[in-house]
Amino acid sequence: MCRWMAWLGQPVLIEELLFNTQHGIVDQSLHARMGAEPTNGDGFGMGWYGTGAGPAVYRSISPAWADPNLRELAAHVESPLFLTHVRAAIGSPVQETNCHPFRRGPWLFVHNGYIAGFDVLRRDLMLAVDPGLFAEIHGSTDTEVVFHLALTFGLEDDPISALERTVGFIESAAEQRGVAAAVQASFGVSDGTTLWAVRYATEGRPRSLFASADVDAVRRLHPDNPRFQRLSEDDRLIVSEPFSDLPGVWQEIPEATAVTVRRGGVLEERPFRPRYEQSSCPKLSR
Amino acid sequence: MCRWMAWLGQPVLIEELLFNTQHGIVDQSLHARMGAEPTNGDGFGMGWYGTGAGPAVYRSISPAWADPNLRELAAHVESPLFLTHVRAAIGSPVQETNCHPFRRGPWLFVHNGYIAGFDVLRRDLMLAVDPGLFAEIHGSTDTEVVFHLALTFGLEDDPISALERTVGFIESAAEQRGVAAAVQASFGVSDGTTLWAVRYATEGRPRSLFASADVDAVRRLHPDNPRFQRLSEDDRLIVSEPFSDLPGVWQEIPEATAVTVRRGGVLEERPFRPRYEQSSCPKLSR
Amino acid sequence: MCRWMAWLGQPVLIEELLFNTQHGIVDQSLHARMGAEPTNGDGFGMGWYGTGAGPAVYRSISPAWADPNLRELAAHVESPLFLTHVRAAIGSPVQETNCHPFRRGPWLFVHNGYIAGFDVLRRDLMLAVDPGLFAEIHGSTDTEVVFHLALTFGLEDDPISALERTVGFIESAAEQRGVAAAVQASFGVSDGTTLWAVRYATEGRPRSLFASADVDAVRRLHPDNPRFQRLSEDDRLIVSEPFSDLPGVWQEIPEATAVTVRRGGVLEERPFRPRYEQSSCPKLSR
Amino acid sequence: MCRWMAWLGQPVLIEELLFNTQHGIVDQSLHARMGAEPTNGDGFGMGWYGTGAGPAVYRSISPAWADPNLRELAAHVESPLFLTHVRAAIGSPVQETNCHPFRRGPWLFVHNGYIAGFDVLRRDLMLAVDPGLFAEIHGSTDTEVVFHLALTFGLEDDPISALERTVGFIESAAEQRGVAAAVQASFGVSDGTTLWAVRYATEGRPRSLFASADVDAVRRLHPDNPRFQRLSEDDRLIVSEPFSDLPGVWQEIPEATAVTVRRGGVLEERPFRPRYEQSSCPKLSR
Repeated sequence: MCRWMAWLGQPVLIEELLFNTQHGIVDQSLHARMGAEPTNGDGFGMGWYGTGAGPAVYRSISPAWADPNLRELAAHVESPLFLTHVRAAIGSPVQETNCHPFRRGPWLFVHNGYIAGFDVLRRDLMLAVDPGLFAEIHGSTDTEVVFHLALTFGLEDDPISALERTVGFIESAAEQRGVAAAVQASFGVSDGTTLWAVRYATEGRPRSLFASADVDAVRRLHPDNPRFQRLSEDDRLIVSEPFSDLPGVWQEIPEATAVTVRRGGVLEERPFRPRYEQSSCPKLSR
Repeated sequence: MCRWMAWLGQPVLIEELLFNTQHGIVDQSLHARMGAEPTNGDGFGMGWYGTGAGPAVYRSISPAWADPNLRELAAHVESPLFLTHVRAAIGSPVQETNCHPFRRGPWLFVHNGYIAGFDVLRRDLMLAVDPGLFAEIHGSTDTEVVFHLALTFGLEDDPISALERTVGFIESAAEQRGVAAAVQASFGVSDGTTLWAVRYATEGRPRSLFASADVDAVRRLHPDNPRFQRLSEDDRLIVSEPFSDLPGVWQEIPEATAVTVRRGGVLEERPFRPRYEQSSCPKLSR
Repeated sequence: MCRWMAWLGQPVLIEELLFNTQHGIVDQSLHARMGAEPTNGDGFGMGWYGTGAGPAVYRSISPAWADPNLRELAAHVESPLFLTHVRAAIGSPVQETNCHPFRRGPWLFVHNGYIAGFDVLRRDLMLAVDPGLFAEIHGSTDTEVVFHLALTFGLEDDPISALERTVGFIESAAEQRGVAAAVQASFGVSDGTTLWAVRYATEGRPRSLFASADVDAVRRLHPDNPRFQRLSEDDRLIVSEPFSDLPGVWQEIPEATAVTVRRGGVLEERPFRPRYEQSSCPKLSR
Repeated sequence: MCRWMAWLGQPVLIEELLFNTQHGIVDQSLHARMGAEPTNGDGFGMGWYGTGAGPAVYRSISPAWADPNLRELAAHVESPLFLTHVRAAIGSPVQETNCHPFRRGPWLFVHNGYIAGFDVLRRDLMLAVDPGLFAEIHGSTDTEVVFHLALTFGLEDDPISALERTVGFIESAAEQRGVAAAVQASFGVSDGTTLWAVRYATEGRPRSLFASADVDAVRRLHPDNPRFQRLSEDDRLIVSEPFSDLPGVWQEIPEATAVTVRRGGVLEERPFRPRYEQSSCPKLSR
């Protein structure tokens, strides 16, 4: 179980959304309300686009609530697009290489959920990763393998479609190995320009996921903060759990749905339909 | 807010009491029930007597639930007397030098609670520490200062009496500085032979603290574990929260009470009465 | 033993000076040439001025050479004024609160060297710290106490003069306690506008310290880097050890000397003369 | 580059060999003399046999010289058989799952050296690991893969033979991928009863490795230490670098040689001859 959030809009100091809001992601690290576990204290990570080439990634094995460096960065880094993730480990070790977001080039990836029976499936899934990407897997989480599968299946060309193939492939592999209810997920992806999010579970209710409804909503989030009063229609938030100081303005992303957030505050929804096409997986060695 | 436990009895593998019991101290690090906060994830520490000279101390800034080394040590260290502490920081940094137990020579010290207004009182209290001990304070917690005050007031001669003087002195200093409800505490102390525990608050209800009632109780703790079936009357536990697989066998230590546990399973209770005697504090420089 | 560097000039990506130069500070963490020890692997810290209010401080107990977050930050943070420090602990614990720079408000402070007999002097020095600052000392290094003494002696009004009083006071205290050769130091200080550096030892040769000679020198540092070809006369570096790809362009700061670097590339030198004036220390309680 | 040591003999406090000797393994973490790098500060690990079931493993990302917990454990754990390893990372992250020793059941494994072109070979080597072991690989080092290959090739039946097959297989894979000088290694292995060590390089001089010559030698190591005066002929040390307070008593293990140390001080040498037998690798999926 984990929690994550993403911002796409005008440049903001990251602390505005991490610390200066009620029930933000750092509070969710200690007191999550809608997750399987209240505590997400097994490390965290933050990826942002801004100064310098490509996204920056800061990852730590400290709980988010206790890391003084996170407070420093949040108070001194401004970004128009960032993702933050707090982790509750399910079996895999607490180490920076297991913290989200994962990155390749301009791409960032976060995940809340799990691949069921990952111990059983891990080898199958890793073999399906493009051999040229194999050596870039440094940790031992399911998520890092999912990300490299998605890259293998074309994430850089069409993220949602690649994730549909990835999930389809995982479900197919799981079925062959007798693993039920293979995928439980909310995913977040960005290339530095656009933000994609997916809410999906093979069986049952997927992890909670919300989008901010519109600019007026976000403006009301901080009525006394002049920065937020200047919000334009460009600004959107995707969150595992709503910030509590803004009741009523969050729209739940439906199950089996992908959303695309583009600059200009555009939010598009489409069904998320996993599929496994043998022919579309030329790199599969089995 | 913190939680702690202590064992004095026959030698046991530490994991028996940390991991192989229900709602043991490691579970309390994630899901405390009787504390001010459910999460005690800001580091932990363990001190034990056994092989080698004096007590060993292992301290880590990882949450207890996530530290693989703690599992290793617990599974491979056997001790007749040990104290374990999980920490919830209140303001002071998460660093090993702020983790309990604190140690001097054969003495170990743990604390659940706080000194109110410690920012205001810290200088007064540190000045009252024996100058010869001053340089041994490496962290920034209230507890480490309390321990060095208790050493200054004679902990090594009479622990309970020294803690009464320490608490009395702190209450007197707090009164002078206008700090109310100065001390909130359960303390645990050992010299490797005897175990002392104190439950006390200047005002209101002190932190929870329990002692195991008698040997039969502890035996029932692990009906299927041959090790525990061999328990003798020598074995005693002091815990912030009862282990849940043994309902009804814990005796709450009354408020304002000190207990002494001696080898042979002896458990003595006496009132804990803080006092400030100017004349008994020759080392006070102000 | 430690090593540090400071930049005051036009905004640069921090990595230009930490990683993209030969024998920069990160290389000095592993292979220092002019220090008492080649290895400075006991944590590091970086403070920078830029986005957000006041300076940011990032500190880590990892060796600088091994911390992936440092590479990330260096590649994605741009600053016109920053200080970086790599630490070799002498006795005090490896913890973030012992890493430099130390901060108060807009002020940053780094130190290479030591206070001799700090165990003996620590209490005397801490008692001389303004009581209102006392609770802000979170670690156990000599440097943090020196910084708070300097604040007590007027750092915020006149940094060099305050450091002269601080060193004078320490030397006086050391003499009373029979400690010889009390201070060994290069100090770096900034308020976000100006940069001050001091090179001084009570006895013997002080730690190495260099300033970049002039703008042409810095330009030659990176002949192929267009960013550096655009350098103006505003740019100055202060370093414990010269970057090796620019032999001959560093000027050693003389012993017992303070330098002031102002915007515009101004570099002023003056003698550094410790003095202890009883009358100027109204806050001393002894 | 790394350094390691192993002890097989009578039970000793681990600190005797880690801290209370000249140029022991902890000193080698800071000042190695015979390695490719003087600094081995990228984590360390220690595995020992004694109390509890199977070996204990303590691993830390702190440099060995700076970890207070290592001093504590070394001073309070006694063992007749232990291995310690200090790491210098070559590319792979500094995380506990990359620290040696690696373990499976009663088996411990350490390695000084590298697999050349591991990025290129990693996928091939991981595919050759027994699928039932695949999910136990948690880190990203070459060594962990080598260990799981050796388990696949029969380490638990015949460690030296399995390592010969493992190295032969790696050399064969490397040849197919155009990687030269594939294996550079000293290996240490134990099952809790016997200790095996290998010194080998595909090309050039392998990493340094020494065995203590005989009991008199070890006795002379600590002439004033009554513990060592009681040494019997059971005691043997294997070390990457000789302890410096015992010049002349170390025998270099020849290149391309395996040694077996058995209880009773028995030290046997045999040639180490890598071989690749297609027929002996039924689990290879390629």
